[in-house]
Amino acid sequence: MVAAPGPWTDAAARAALRRIFDAAVAQAEPGAAVRRHLPPRPRGRCVVVGAGKASAVMAAALDAAWPDVDLGGVVVTRYGHAVPAGRVTILEAAHPVPDQGSLEAGRRILDAVRSLGPDDLVVALISGGASALMVQPAAPLSLADKQAVNRALLASGAAIGEMNAVRKHLSAIKGGRLAQAAAPARVVTLVISDVPGDDPAAIGSGPTVADPTTWTDVASILERRGIVLPAAAADVAAAGQETPKPGSLDEDVHIVAAPAQSLAAAADAARALGLTPLILGDALEGEAREAGTLMAGIARSVRRHGQPVAAPAVLLSGGETTVTIGPEGAGRGGRNTEFLLALAVALGGEAGVWAISGDSDGIDGTEDAAGALVTPDTLARAAAAGLEPRRALRGHDSYAVFDVLGDLVRTGPTLTNVNDIRAIMIA
Amino acid sequence: MVAAPGPWTDAAARAALRRIFDAAVAQAEPGAAVRRHLPPRPRGRCVVVGAGKASAVMAAALDAAWPDVDLGGVVVTRYGHAVPAGRVTILEAAHPVPDQGSLEAGRRILDAVRSLGPDDLVVALISGGASALMVQPAAPLSLADKQAVNRALLASGAAIGEMNAVRKHLSAIKGGRLAQAAAPARVVTLVISDVPGDDPAAIGSGPTVADPTTWTDVASILERRGIVLPAAAADVAAAGQETPKPGSLDEDVHIVAAPAQSLAAAADAARALGLTPLILGDALEGEAREAGTLMAGIARSVRRHGQPVAAPAVLLSGGETTVTIGPEGAGRGGRNTEFLLALAVALGGEAGVWAISGDSDGIDGTEDAAGALVTPDTLARAAAAGLEPRRALRGHDSYAVFDVLGDLVRTGPTLTNVNDIRAIMIA
Repeated sequence: MVAAPGPWTDAAARAALRRIFDAAVAQAEPGAAVRRHLPPRPRGRCVVVGAGKASAVMAAALDAAWPDVDLGGVVVTRYGHAVPAGRVTILEAAHPVPDQGSLEAGRRILDAVRSLGPDDLVVALISGGASALMVQPAAPLSLADKQAVNRALLASGAAIGEMNAVRKHLSAIKGGRLAQAAAPARVVTLVISDVPGDDPAAIGSGPTVADPTTWTDVASILERRGIVLPAAAADVAAAGQETPKPGSLDEDVHIVAAPAQSLAAAADAARALGLTPLILGDALEGEAREAGTLMAGIARSVRRHGQPVAAPAVLLSGGETTVTIGPEGAGRGGRNTEFLLALAVALGGEAGVWAISGDSDGIDGTEDAAGALVTPDTLARAAAAGLEPRRALRGHDSYAVFDVLGDLVRTGPTLTNVNDIRAIMIA
Repeated sequence: MVAAPGPWTDAAARAALRRIFDAAVAQAEPGAAVRRHLPPRPRGRCVVVGAGKASAVMAAALDAAWPDVDLGGVVVTRYGHAVPAGRVTILEAAHPVPDQGSLEAGRRILDAVRSLGPDDLVVALISGGASALMVQPAAPLSLADKQAVNRALLASGAAIGEMNAVRKHLSAIKGGRLAQAAAPARVVTLVISDVPGDDPAAIGSGPTVADPTTWTDVASILERRGIVLPAAAADVAAAGQETPKPGSLDEDVHIVAAPAQSLAAAADAARALGLTPLILGDALEGEAREAGTLMAGIARSVRRHGQPVAAPAVLLSGGETTVTIGPEGAGRGGRNTEFLLALAVALGGEAGVWAISGDSDGIDGTEDAAGALVTPDTLARAAAAGLEPRRALRGHDSYAVFDVLGDLVRTGPTLTNVNDIRAIMIA
């Protein structure tokens, strides 16, 4: 496909958006992401550990890349996300609430990195979900104790940074303790980020990353949030063993895939199609339908005023929006189709605007599609099919509209996650 | 003030944002807007007519600019918006629901433009609210008949374009009929726009602008929306007298102030302060708090990635957001303070981000302030003052927070309206 010389046809615009979306997802493909960031080969053994929805695919890529290295290890992924990874053992566990599998994974991963030498290399593969999939409560804490603390933190309204500080101090594997256990082996960490800001200390609670927070911080968080620790956790607190602090670990951490990198790939794809990309942000949040309404205004401004960018252009954004279900209940649909339906309604059939939005993991909410496509005649085609888009929007029933129109975008599960990818094309 | 050489101080950032906001409002000042677009002087008389919240100030500027022209006329503004306008009579009427004053204004304005000659000039001054302030139902329709049709349209869920088509066909002054009545005099129309798209045919239902809609359109709208006309309106429909169609009027229409022009002035002010402006759109809509959350994500992206613009920068936008009050009821606050409070909460104290948002008419909702300012320490200062921003946001009680912090922005009534002006500075 080459850049269209004149006005874009509907077919060309659809194909362009799909190409842009696919470029973003391909950039986050775990195997490719690992291959782009292979560390130098070790003189000794390579022990592969890790946790996350993408960890099995990442491990498989490393296993395939280094057939002649003395390589082994164990990683944990979510139930259903396992793929064969050669010499690396794949475990499965529960997400988002840890289970016995998570505990078993934490124990076996810690075991795998102990007793290594200075010539050995530990490659830690971390992706979304790692925090729940790999747990090891600090002795004498039980899994139930830790879950009780987690529930209390959630109920208290604690911020994610506060929760992580407490969790790290009650863990034998988080907050840099996995890296500590691996010494004197070298540790290289490859991270797929689905966290705003891409902070390696936050992703999976940073098992190989130094922890700037202290027991003093934890005490003031617990006091502020009115949380009383269970007896065993109080014992851990009384022992007061600190997580490794910045400067104490030889950190070698690489973000190998992240929303910003996928958006950059999408921008490259847009440029190759003759479209000017504008990245609005890699971590946009807010109610999905309101984001759709607001972005319709930005798209209109591109058409009317050439602002914030001159057409032909693509507005790109990432992050996770939210769908809040009201008392009226809900039909079927994820945040991407809801965003798109609101966008279409707000655009009101505006000519020259197309859009795609989808979850990079291939699953929009609980649906079998990654997302969908909007065209200038989405509303007209919906009306012709007897659909009522405004009513469907009110009832959170966006999936059905795009399903009937044949405009769902299906990628299948991608086994990666850099959140949602949105592209609005104005031409 | 000159561009700060290094990091911005809080005082300098606040002053910069206030200067940017004031530049946007000053651009929309009705007198200045009229003076920028004075038509050539007529050989004959000049009759000034018009309607809208800014019409008295606009008329005063014209009266002052042309002391030696044979000038007179009558304009109608909202109760409380009258200012002395020399030789132009100022009437007052109700908004948004027309009253007897609106009817009187319609009659006197039509009278004022009749019996003019080809050397005479009619200057029509149209601004927000004109549709309600100046009415003249087509005979034999009464004001009550017209109000009944309006209510039925609103209740039917008719789109604004559909409502305008019906209204114009039931009016003796809208949809170009004022201009028709003024023939053979020349008609120049000066418009202050608060309507997305700045379509002169839509602002004040376009009394001097040709109407592309027809009685056939009206009939299908009424059928689609299930509306039965009152007897008198049915008589008007049966007579089927058409509004003037495009090509039949010698239109000379100038948008003298509009959200896009104010944003351009704000962008100039930002550049003069060493900040790169990026205009996201002049007509952004959506729930105020969600817009705040989403824009926080864009501001963060500027800080982290230099996208969609490199800092130091200002994200500018216009339009009207919405505040939807839930069953929990509401405290005090307009859409601008609610937008800002949500922005501050979503930014979570992010360094280097300041914001201003205010209604260009000087009145945020029903409050005595135009809007407010957000600084990096808004949340910290609120906490120190014993305020709970998240709770205030849930209770739509944003005004109180900025009031206690001393961060309300007060301009007094500006007698103009180009909707809201938002500026988020990232430095």
